[in-house]
Amino acid sequence: MNGAVALPLDLPELSLTASGEALVRRSVLPSGVRILSERVPGARSATIGFWVAVGSRDELGAEAARGSGATFVDALPSRFGSTHFLEHLLFKGTPKRSALDIAVAFDEVGGEHNALTGKEYTCYYAKIQDSDLPMAVAVLADMFTSSVLDETEFENERGVILEELAMADDDPNDVVGERLFEAVLGEHPLGRPVGGSNDTIRAVTRDAVWQHYLANYRPNDLVVTVAGAVDHDELVGLVVAAVESAGWDLSVPARPVERRGADSATVTRGSALSLTTRPNEQAVLMIGYPGFVASDDRRSALSVMNSVLGGGMSSRLFQEVREKRGLAYSVYSFASGYSDAGVFGMYAGCSPKNAGRVADLLVAEFSRLALDGITDLELARARGQLSGSAALALEDSDTRMSRLGRSEITTGEFADLDEGLRRLDAVTTADVQHLAQLIVARPLSIAAVGALDADAFSQVVTA
Amino acid sequence: MNGAVALPLDLPELSLTASGEALVRRSVLPSGVRILSERVPGARSATIGFWVAVGSRDELGAEAARGSGATFVDALPSRFGSTHFLEHLLFKGTPKRSALDIAVAFDEVGGEHNALTGKEYTCYYAKIQDSDLPMAVAVLADMFTSSVLDETEFENERGVILEELAMADDDPNDVVGERLFEAVLGEHPLGRPVGGSNDTIRAVTRDAVWQHYLANYRPNDLVVTVAGAVDHDELVGLVVAAVESAGWDLSVPARPVERRGADSATVTRGSALSLTTRPNEQAVLMIGYPGFVASDDRRSALSVMNSVLGGGMSSRLFQEVREKRGLAYSVYSFASGYSDAGVFGMYAGCSPKNAGRVADLLVAEFSRLALDGITDLELARARGQLSGSAALALEDSDTRMSRLGRSEITTGEFADLDEGLRRLDAVTTADVQHLAQLIVARPLSIAAVGALDADAFSQVVTA
Repeated sequence: MNGAVALPLDLPELSLTASGEALVRRSVLPSGVRILSERVPGARSATIGFWVAVGSRDELGAEAARGSGATFVDALPSRFGSTHFLEHLLFKGTPKRSALDIAVAFDEVGGEHNALTGKEYTCYYAKIQDSDLPMAVAVLADMFTSSVLDETEFENERGVILEELAMADDDPNDVVGERLFEAVLGEHPLGRPVGGSNDTIRAVTRDAVWQHYLANYRPNDLVVTVAGAVDHDELVGLVVAAVESAGWDLSVPARPVERRGADSATVTRGSALSLTTRPNEQAVLMIGYPGFVASDDRRSALSVMNSVLGGGMSSRLFQEVREKRGLAYSVYSFASGYSDAGVFGMYAGCSPKNAGRVADLLVAEFSRLALDGITDLELARARGQLSGSAALALEDSDTRMSRLGRSEITTGEFADLDEGLRRLDAVTTADVQHLAQLIVARPLSIAAVGALDADAFSQVVTA
Repeated sequence: MNGAVALPLDLPELSLTASGEALVRRSVLPSGVRILSERVPGARSATIGFWVAVGSRDELGAEAARGSGATFVDALPSRFGSTHFLEHLLFKGTPKRSALDIAVAFDEVGGEHNALTGKEYTCYYAKIQDSDLPMAVAVLADMFTSSVLDETEFENERGVILEELAMADDDPNDVVGERLFEAVLGEHPLGRPVGGSNDTIRAVTRDAVWQHYLANYRPNDLVVTVAGAVDHDELVGLVVAAVESAGWDLSVPARPVERRGADSATVTRGSALSLTTRPNEQAVLMIGYPGFVASDDRRSALSVMNSVLGGGMSSRLFQEVREKRGLAYSVYSFASGYSDAGVFGMYAGCSPKNAGRVADLLVAEFSRLALDGITDLELARARGQLSGSAALALEDSDTRMSRLGRSEITTGEFADLDEGLRRLDAVTTADVQHLAQLIVARPLSIAAVGALDADAFSQVVTA
């Protein structure tokens, strides 16, 4: 329907039009497999994802596993990083297809294919031309259902993952992001790095990853989402045929795995300052506060606050730090929300000698926003920016595919552009100021990477 | 027309259909302003670019400038980096619009706007919803024609650019790319870094940048390209109105600036080995050879060679270095072509202790391809990959806008998908082997960044 409100996706079958154009449909098979599609008229390509609602936060270390009574991990030093390890291994072959066969299948049609391990989900995806959708379903389904996790491939891939971690470790922006989450969220599982560490990746055994695979890649874990040139009924037929040919019995009844609870967890700050000393040209720093869960009612107000503070070239942080003072090339703010915790943060890259001054400026600008609020003009501009950029983003089938998957896994609610606009229209300047006051009163953490010492941040860091 | 062949764009007006759908039109105003559009039916957004065919290669150092008799740079230590400096300054205001006004104009509609300085061109671009195209033309035209290059803004921006360079210097991949071009192309102007260096950016004066602006942003330098939801006649009207209101007299006759010659320049290798020692976790390395000019007749064969050697997960480099041996996370090959020179290269990121072995593997795989050629199956897969990925890329108006601009500036020839496919179909395995033999016989250079010493590469480096 046109101008649809946000509808829960919990119905076994549902159709609605998003923005009066795309058609969203959802099917749940008796076995709990969920299939969602969003048909975009005129599209000649499609993006497809195979999802499970399992990410790095769900990994249990040896200690936690013992406490939970889970026996198969008792003997293991750690499972941290096993989600990411498994993501790599799914590309390494099945009884039907070698790693090369999988790579060739997508390469020979010019498709893009890859996978993403997040804190709360894992997604295997591909973008292909419309005529290649049956191939994509067949290959992704084979990878998902029938990975062999060959021992030799496993050891080779351990080396690849260690290289991936080394690459990330040489990227100051990656490092500062990981350190900020640890600093703000402390012992909460969302505070852990997604990919594991050198030590845990060296320690992970094939058996731990195999157990992870058996436990989390069952029919009622699987969510398939497709956006672009797709016919829903054909898609359902393709998925059913592919997983049945892999030996799955779809007639065994099961409910889809339950969504995580959305109650805000208690978060205890890990540290006020996390400093990683490096002989770099530039210092990169992030200042963060505990934020809000993804489904929080105030998320539209949070988006507006983020937009005004650090969402573009006209934002306050960009204007004050870069335009007026020339202190940074990159400066912005961000809001990350997960099921039971979130982080609101600010970023800048600057000369090490200016790091303290820039940190002071970031906190001062955020405090000023909390103290004085935002203007009606700023609110109007933020609404325009958020609705305009959302409309532009939805031209990509990637964005639509990803939105469908994240909605299904996290909130179970699909909000189209019109509904998003309606929520934005309801935000007031008072809402935004109130939010800023709430957040700025929380204990902040700083993470920084560069040729720095802790004194630089003495003004903003409180023990 | 349908199934169009590659047509020269040198006619004052030209229409053709690309892939039987999009409509390309080109207009040249009497003053030499060139306007190209590609209408994509069904699109609701557009990407617009304002281009000049001036990049870092066109900058003259003090020595060269003296030799050329150009008097205004006589007193300057250098102009290296002035193109990039000017690119930044165009966002800093005109008599009509402050820097904030420019930022707000795009931010408040959720548009993306930015600029790119390359070795042979500079482009200012924006992606907006269709209804915002008149705004985008007005703002970009104002920036292009009427920048004030305020002295205070100039000094602030010097700080921002130094931060941008520092950020790039902390990125091993940026560094290794710059070093490879210097090593392969030596004293050729294409070998220089695009953004200048700390020293040249500190030395650039406002006057040098002002002279650069006067000399290179005239009506017959300007190329406007738009792809997506655009009507050509309306676009021409918008551009004419915008630049005339800025004071440009479009009735003064001028020919568009001439394209660069496409004859291959003589290139003398800068060095066999360029080593940047850093205490990083990972070593990144590139091996490069002099390649081909962008307009070379053999460019389709080169694309096939690149695809087979290092173009995807099924490529030889990926299979040999990552899949079979687990030595790297990222490994690929690339071919960069410019008007009178090019580089063909291979990249890998790996543990420092394996850098020598990985370098040997890259060269060995390339040599094997030159010795034994490629199979019919590999040729067929590469054709599929190149045509499929081209079709997927053209779904973005960004890609189409950029293709139009680069065609107009470099070759003056517009090849649609069908023509690209025809050229690919003409490539034989013998063509590819012959090309590989030509390139592999040229002197190679290695650039590497990491915790390395030169001995690592003794096997592949010859003096």
